[in-house]
Amino acid sequence: MVVYNFSAGPAMMPSEVVEQIKAELTSYKASQMSVMEISHRSDLYAQMFQEAKADLRELLAVPKTHRILFLQGGASMQFTTVPLNLAYKTKRIAFVDTGHWSQTAIADAKLLPDKEVDVIASGHENGYTALPTKIKAQKDYDYVHLTINNTIEGTMFQKLPELAGQTLVGDISSNILGYQHNVDKYGLLYASAQKNIGPAGLTLVIVKEDLLDQEQDLPSMLDYVKLIKEDSNLNTPPVFPIYAAGLVFKWLKKQGGVAQMQRQNEEKSNLLYEQLDNSKLFKATAAKADRSLTNIPFTTGDKALDERFVTEATQAGLCNLKGHALVGGMRASMYNAFPYAGAKALVEFMQKFEQQVHPSFAVSAL
Amino acid sequence: MVVYNFSAGPAMMPSEVVEQIKAELTSYKASQMSVMEISHRSDLYAQMFQEAKADLRELLAVPKTHRILFLQGGASMQFTTVPLNLAYKTKRIAFVDTGHWSQTAIADAKLLPDKEVDVIASGHENGYTALPTKIKAQKDYDYVHLTINNTIEGTMFQKLPELAGQTLVGDISSNILGYQHNVDKYGLLYASAQKNIGPAGLTLVIVKEDLLDQEQDLPSMLDYVKLIKEDSNLNTPPVFPIYAAGLVFKWLKKQGGVAQMQRQNEEKSNLLYEQLDNSKLFKATAAKADRSLTNIPFTTGDKALDERFVTEATQAGLCNLKGHALVGGMRASMYNAFPYAGAKALVEFMQKFEQQVHPSFAVSAL
Repeated sequence: MVVYNFSAGPAMMPSEVVEQIKAELTSYKASQMSVMEISHRSDLYAQMFQEAKADLRELLAVPKTHRILFLQGGASMQFTTVPLNLAYKTKRIAFVDTGHWSQTAIADAKLLPDKEVDVIASGHENGYTALPTKIKAQKDYDYVHLTINNTIEGTMFQKLPELAGQTLVGDISSNILGYQHNVDKYGLLYASAQKNIGPAGLTLVIVKEDLLDQEQDLPSMLDYVKLIKEDSNLNTPPVFPIYAAGLVFKWLKKQGGVAQMQRQNEEKSNLLYEQLDNSKLFKATAAKADRSLTNIPFTTGDKALDERFVTEATQAGLCNLKGHALVGGMRASMYNAFPYAGAKALVEFMQKFEQQVHPSFAVSAL
Repeated sequence: MVVYNFSAGPAMMPSEVVEQIKAELTSYKASQMSVMEISHRSDLYAQMFQEAKADLRELLAVPKTHRILFLQGGASMQFTTVPLNLAYKTKRIAFVDTGHWSQTAIADAKLLPDKEVDVIASGHENGYTALPTKIKAQKDYDYVHLTINNTIEGTMFQKLPELAGQTLVGDISSNILGYQHNVDKYGLLYASAQKNIGPAGLTLVIVKEDLLDQEQDLPSMLDYVKLIKEDSNLNTPPVFPIYAAGLVFKWLKKQGGVAQMQRQNEEKSNLLYEQLDNSKLFKATAAKADRSLTNIPFTTGDKALDERFVTEATQAGLCNLKGHALVGGMRASMYNAFPYAGAKALVEFMQKFEQQVHPSFAVSAL
């Protein structure tokens, strides 16, 4: 049985990459050492890291004004590190509340001393199934924080709000390298690796260097200036996740880069959204205008039926379709490495399920 | 050519473990998913994590009073997290300065607001080649911090200082699971994984739960109470490093546990120390009473000769013997997975080198 893994992360990796890791696991580049055993001060590591960084810069078209950091701790660690580093002029931060992860980022920022945290717009009224439309900043902020894609709620900023003069910070964990972000529009972008890139344990930060206060003296692991100075090698970096990410970057370049990934992701998500829009049993929960490219929550509206669907889908090799505990129902996450065949298999399974549950639906659809 | 990797970390892993990772990399427990692709909310992960945690508890004889956390960021991240969590009563922390890593921990603690940081003893006078002897705490501290093994300087607390009434915090990155620490004597122990355990990107914290302030409200990734509540699954954990560490724990149990590892580490280090003590060319730099079990710096006293030794040793398959930039000379790090045969190969190479450089030394030794 072919298994399709719809997990929101850790998620599917390109099978070619997994095979390559396997093939060279006991001896990295003829060193007779596993990549897990090589020193982070060795030339072997330095070359691997510099290539990964350069490939990422190329793939995302990161401008020269921005530096790239390979860190640990997940996007959640950045909920603390970003305000510590960027909110030092006005000490004011604006958040757009678009669901669970932006709320977590807001809560963590509020726990820092001496920062003013304003929520300037919220999707609360519509249960976070749509993004807030009127996003205005009434004051000067050190930055405005946006969760660009909301993994749990399945929404996504398809267009950035107009906020002239404000610095934008974006959490792009769910669609980094799967959607063409204009890095130049942001002061800082961050993303964990376990969705669109590779194994969990790696976090990427892309920051416009002139936003940083060179005089600020933060504890070393929380200080972008110190981390940049040591080129993400201030202490031992997560060598294996960086290695795997580097292989994924090379795979992405071979596939045609981010533009090609976005096209493929659109094909996969369009197929599923179309099925959802045409179904009498299932419906997508996110508002059409704000739909995510990579995370698609849906439901029958009947809890027991949702559970039955998840169970039967799992038996058919369609795994990890259970929705997040906060919203229930189902969720299909389809990142870069997820194949079109998996989206097709899900759609076909949904059609079969719908016909079984309500044969009349199928008839009426004729 | 057999290659022996004397790296201070990332370091050698048991070859059986590397082989097992390779064998099951494309399908973890018949799931048809790589371990890199499984969700941290799946039963597969939960079982793997709980086993790793239980095995670690057994191996280290962690008492019930202490909780175990699997985190990210390296020991360096704990330089900030420990004081944030433990220094809230007196807000005073005592440090024993035993070299580079304790100094880094001191510097990071001093950057936190509202903490008083006292250095109560220092090995500065003897260039950190010996540990300070008179360690006294004149005040009540929230804790006294000790770098139990100094990876760079090659010193180690073979006996803990008598500090009645004070809580001890120990950095055991270099000899966790390689030396029998009495966990009960500590309020908190922490260690990065890339020396004695597995791939970089995993940090272990063992903390006496009643030392924590349940009311303290720190940013989530820095708050032990929140991390304990979610059993190290507050955000996506570093699944692959945890998986590899879990396999190493099982390997350690099969080998006879920590007592057996300590015996083997003593055999390896004794062999090298004996060679150093009997050599007319090489000498160990650390004071005899404070010598590390796992990190052995040594030198000929001649920079050019040291460099020649490192170059020729590398050519002979004895890799990563170059000393840390701060102290120069050579350093042999031999952790749990490092074989006795490697220590023997080094000693034999040193003897040959010594004879080549100074044939008279060999004669006079007769």
